[in-house]
Amino acid sequence: MTSLQPQASSLSFELDAKDGAARAGILQTRRGEIETPVFMPVGTAGTVKGIRFAELEAPDLNAQIILGNTYHLWLRPGIEVIRACGGLHNFIGWNRAMLTDSGGFQVWSLAEIRKVTEEGTEFRSHIDGALCFLSPEISMEVQGVLGAEIAMAFDECPPGQIDHEAAKRSMELTLRWARRSKEAHVAQAGSLHHRQALFGIIQGASHLDLRRESLERTTEIGFDGYAIGGLSVGEEKPVMLDIIEDIAPRMPADKPRYLMGVGTPEDLVESVARGVDMFDCVLPTRNGRNGQAFTSRGKLNIKNARFTNDTRPLDETCACSVCQRHSRAFIRHLYLAGEMLASILLTHHNLAFFLDTMKRVRQAIRSGQFAKFRREFTEQIHSGLE
Amino acid sequence: MTSLQPQASSLSFELDAKDGAARAGILQTRRGEIETPVFMPVGTAGTVKGIRFAELEAPDLNAQIILGNTYHLWLRPGIEVIRACGGLHNFIGWNRAMLTDSGGFQVWSLAEIRKVTEEGTEFRSHIDGALCFLSPEISMEVQGVLGAEIAMAFDECPPGQIDHEAAKRSMELTLRWARRSKEAHVAQAGSLHHRQALFGIIQGASHLDLRRESLERTTEIGFDGYAIGGLSVGEEKPVMLDIIEDIAPRMPADKPRYLMGVGTPEDLVESVARGVDMFDCVLPTRNGRNGQAFTSRGKLNIKNARFTNDTRPLDETCACSVCQRHSRAFIRHLYLAGEMLASILLTHHNLAFFLDTMKRVRQAIRSGQFAKFRREFTEQIHSGLE
Repeated sequence: MTSLQPQASSLSFELDAKDGAARAGILQTRRGEIETPVFMPVGTAGTVKGIRFAELEAPDLNAQIILGNTYHLWLRPGIEVIRACGGLHNFIGWNRAMLTDSGGFQVWSLAEIRKVTEEGTEFRSHIDGALCFLSPEISMEVQGVLGAEIAMAFDECPPGQIDHEAAKRSMELTLRWARRSKEAHVAQAGSLHHRQALFGIIQGASHLDLRRESLERTTEIGFDGYAIGGLSVGEEKPVMLDIIEDIAPRMPADKPRYLMGVGTPEDLVESVARGVDMFDCVLPTRNGRNGQAFTSRGKLNIKNARFTNDTRPLDETCACSVCQRHSRAFIRHLYLAGEMLASILLTHHNLAFFLDTMKRVRQAIRSGQFAKFRREFTEQIHSGLE
Repeated sequence: MTSLQPQASSLSFELDAKDGAARAGILQTRRGEIETPVFMPVGTAGTVKGIRFAELEAPDLNAQIILGNTYHLWLRPGIEVIRACGGLHNFIGWNRAMLTDSGGFQVWSLAEIRKVTEEGTEFRSHIDGALCFLSPEISMEVQGVLGAEIAMAFDECPPGQIDHEAAKRSMELTLRWARRSKEAHVAQAGSLHHRQALFGIIQGASHLDLRRESLERTTEIGFDGYAIGGLSVGEEKPVMLDIIEDIAPRMPADKPRYLMGVGTPEDLVESVARGVDMFDCVLPTRNGRNGQAFTSRGKLNIKNARFTNDTRPLDETCACSVCQRHSRAFIRHLYLAGEMLASILLTHHNLAFFLDTMKRVRQAIRSGQFAKFRREFTEQIHSGLE
């Protein structure tokens, strides 16, 4: 049997400041340094929707790491195409760091699940209805070909309001899959172009005792980092924050803590306050395509008639290339005319706002001003648009 | 009655090289110099579809002038919004030169025409079916508010295969409208923020005698430049090139010659060879959105299965930012996945190819090598993809 002792990690993580439970640090990958807390734009099908990679690298965004979705890429274009094109970085033309999820969440949220067995999950593709099967071993193999710096263990993601018994059953399955993910990951390490880091995922739905047990037993297996999965999936927001507040500080202090799929700018700041280091979320891109801008004074719905002649930028305090050039009136016109540029500009601004917020979070932690930052940020974001 | 004597023009045009009938020159506007022959990307509704303005300004495109469509902007967002936002340049955030068409062509191609009278055209909006009326005076007023450096006279654009009698009737109407456009333009000049140049449009369908008459009588009215309208609207390609070959050299040599709405890269080169200075066309943007790339070796349909694993750029000889970074395989994947980035990348590359072709055309004319360039360009574009 393959040893489960961790190999020399391809990832190093060093904390350089703490302020309350909030932490600032550096995650070092072979593709460069990532300052934490970090927000990772979601690049579902090999593209962060609506934005060019050069813009993600530009100073006003400067995304250090993006996420790729194993489920989407596995189904289309398929792993043989990505292998033939030299892995995901080469295929899409992105040289900075990447993290791939395991596919577990997308199977739950997008596909029609046919059967969850001990072996894995049988489901129908949301693209063409084809019958597919995903397991820890297959997820690790696919993620190995994708070749991101960070891979995720294959988990089952239950609904937020699942009862204790079902949540425990699901958690136990996720734990067994975590061990199999680790074994498969270690077994294939030698055949990979480079050693990927592997993160374990803490499940347990809204049940704190299960969350604690999941954390303890996932930590026993031993991963390069730990994620909180299965939040923001239907539970109430205070429930989510309570779980984060309880679980995050118990997670290994010397490893990155990643809150999956969360959330609004306020969620990010509140979760950092509870000790989280890494985030991803589709909100800035998805809501951008739907006409919503995130600003320092809350959400702005560009469809609103009040912006018809409004020559101000989306956010008057924003330094992004969109706010430096374009008005609310113009973006509203583009949106109503169905022009692609509306999505492009709103996506860019939203990502800039999320990434800039995290930059300010890091600065606040490093200067011991995080509590003040958090208070002012929260007050301002609830103050309403001018 | 208002004088029809030309005012001091806001536009100066100077030829600095000739090679056969091909001309190279400089069109000077208050918003900078435009080297001709020039291709103008089409910014229909205040956006060149699928591309950010910063990309149009980047070195690999460096578009000096873009086109705005009066018809579209008049209907949406409407002229009061654009007036309130300080004119079209301010509204969209573009500081380089612009040309607006008169709306005549779009009424013909998009709207449901109700009635063409001496006074103007009554039609139903393609957006909401609203009854609208456009005349030379209204077009001039709208174009005055838009505030482009170059405005176009309001014309009637008949179908390509219209018979001689109907074409003559339409041409006569266009001539009367040209005079009224000029009068309205002169009358409002004092009230405008800056003096716009006004171009007249030569019509006459496929009838050479009418084209010549239209040219002569349009020139008599006197404009800052002259356009050939009503081509590439259903007539055969040799008919189009014959008309250009006959008409372009007869157009005033000291004014810019603009061929409206044409065409493929080959059409551009062939029309330059016949003496044309300015072009606009939706092909690079529209075909880009439909998965077609223009390359130095002809058209490339990105949907084609042969590109599945093709790690080469769209065009191996292209220096644009897309070809420097992304493969055919990746763009094909994006296109099949319905990702916006496919349109963005194909649009960018296509515009780069059109604009770079015109740059090479100018260099060839200036170095007396245009005939050689034309021959090699044509041979290569018909040689087929590797």
